[in-house]
Amino acid sequence: MSAKYCFGIDVGGTTIKCGLFNVEGEILEKWEIPTRTEDNGAYILPDVADAVLDKMRDEKIKKTDVAGIGIGIPGPVDEEGCVEVAVNLHWGRVNITKVLHELTGLPVRAANDANVAALGELWKGGGAGYHNMIMVTLGTGVGGGIIINDRILAGSNGAAGEIGHAHVEDAIKEPCNCGNCGCLEQVASATGIVRLAREELAASDQPSVLREGELSAKAVFDAVKAGDELACRIAERFGAYLGKALAVFSCVTAPEVFVIGGGVSKAGPVILDYIQKYYREYAFSACKQAAFALATLGNDAGICGAARMVLQ
Amino acid sequence: MSAKYCFGIDVGGTTIKCGLFNVEGEILEKWEIPTRTEDNGAYILPDVADAVLDKMRDEKIKKTDVAGIGIGIPGPVDEEGCVEVAVNLHWGRVNITKVLHELTGLPVRAANDANVAALGELWKGGGAGYHNMIMVTLGTGVGGGIIINDRILAGSNGAAGEIGHAHVEDAIKEPCNCGNCGCLEQVASATGIVRLAREELAASDQPSVLREGELSAKAVFDAVKAGDELACRIAERFGAYLGKALAVFSCVTAPEVFVIGGGVSKAGPVILDYIQKYYREYAFSACKQAAFALATLGNDAGICGAARMVLQ
Repeated sequence: MSAKYCFGIDVGGTTIKCGLFNVEGEILEKWEIPTRTEDNGAYILPDVADAVLDKMRDEKIKKTDVAGIGIGIPGPVDEEGCVEVAVNLHWGRVNITKVLHELTGLPVRAANDANVAALGELWKGGGAGYHNMIMVTLGTGVGGGIIINDRILAGSNGAAGEIGHAHVEDAIKEPCNCGNCGCLEQVASATGIVRLAREELAASDQPSVLREGELSAKAVFDAVKAGDELACRIAERFGAYLGKALAVFSCVTAPEVFVIGGGVSKAGPVILDYIQKYYREYAFSACKQAAFALATLGNDAGICGAARMVLQ
Repeated sequence: MSAKYCFGIDVGGTTIKCGLFNVEGEILEKWEIPTRTEDNGAYILPDVADAVLDKMRDEKIKKTDVAGIGIGIPGPVDEEGCVEVAVNLHWGRVNITKVLHELTGLPVRAANDANVAALGELWKGGGAGYHNMIMVTLGTGVGGGIIINDRILAGSNGAAGEIGHAHVEDAIKEPCNCGNCGCLEQVASATGIVRLAREELAASDQPSVLREGELSAKAVFDAVKAGDELACRIAERFGAYLGKALAVFSCVTAPEVFVIGGGVSKAGPVILDYIQKYYREYAFSACKQAAFALATLGNDAGICGAARMVLQ
């Protein structure tokens, strides 16, 4: 490849993160533009194209010097780079690869944003050095990304890695955002941890720092670090749900490494301890020694993974 | 590829199935040789080499006319064609690809036998026309094979597709063959169905044809077809365990199709009804419409998949 540069784009519901990379994978520049969702998101890809073309003009980069544009989208993207619907962008069906190529004349690779972030973490984050990975993003929901032999697995309908919607609990009768009941997301996301905390607080009168102040995943893990017994019980339940679920997932793809990211993972290594305890108990023998790591790229994971798609 | 032929070999604990194929994928000839496990299975690959070379001599096939040998092994085989241990063959570590190539001078592709059978079913069996598949083999145990973009997923340590050891039931305290408790294999294999039958028979005095004669998975599904209420309850429990587990797996790889094979699947379409009922209830929306099919190749799945590996 004689190109010198590539672009990594991470489209979110409110801002679009943009990165200019050299082909060695270094971030040369990064910037943001707003996500304009009006008119069914019709301006989003033209805005991305302008951002790329403007940067090329400013930096005097020729088209032949650019390997392409990688782009992550908050919705299910199939192997061909098409999305059927992306709610946060007000999109129906969009052939991202085709449209963005027509707007820029550059090669384009598109994938789901969680999958793209997973590829970023594999490339230069928590999963560096591995080739088969399951990434788990613990935020408001639970997202995932499956990497097989260094590549994103899109799956049919672009639905691979939707691990937040694995059914893990029959007792939950309240529906998840997806419409099903008892999803992993309902017990292992930031909001899921608050659900577990409410249940534990209601189940006993045991004193706990969690009885004061606002309840959050962060508050729970801060209390765990301070030795709060009730908080530790919540963390055990969280670890049991997630560790068991990851053990089941490992029977499918047998990943070398699990990378845990998202806001909840900011609690640090303690979170891995609770997850691994149950993972190692329930995983099949040949999978028990899989590695666990925290994500390290933060908000750059998306633009890094997007750039990586182009360079593969 | 100018070659005209290839060989598909399926190594079992007692016999080795051999197939001569043309490159269009037709079986021209098939035969069996015994599996000699003495001396730590040292004769197995030389016997396979002799079977291939003898057939080439008999049929006057030149080496340049052979695309290669595909071989399935009952043990975890990694991407490079190495197995660490294959208990049924009395093998420790064997580099199958290398040894068989040295013995024959032909290109060799090796993989786990369940994965190879899955590839066979994708090529010309229940999964024909699809590219992403999860195969489930319901026999004495529960085996599996994961196909991604027409290729076998080996996974780290060759352990991808070991879905029989997904944890699905906390209440089972008796260990599975793998050492864990509550594996899918303990409730959805032929022996698992007998376990469920024993539990249901003990839990009530309800009359049932299953109270006479020998208890087996076949007897259960024969009784289901005859309208036996207690047998139907067993089938519901089987379907719930397996359907829910497949729904969880679908969050990982989002397959287009599930193919159900093995001895239990001989009960026919009724088995798919029970599985799909629960699959569709618990699967994530984007995966709910995955197809279900019965395996069709029977004992030829292994040699077909093995041949396919060489032709890919």
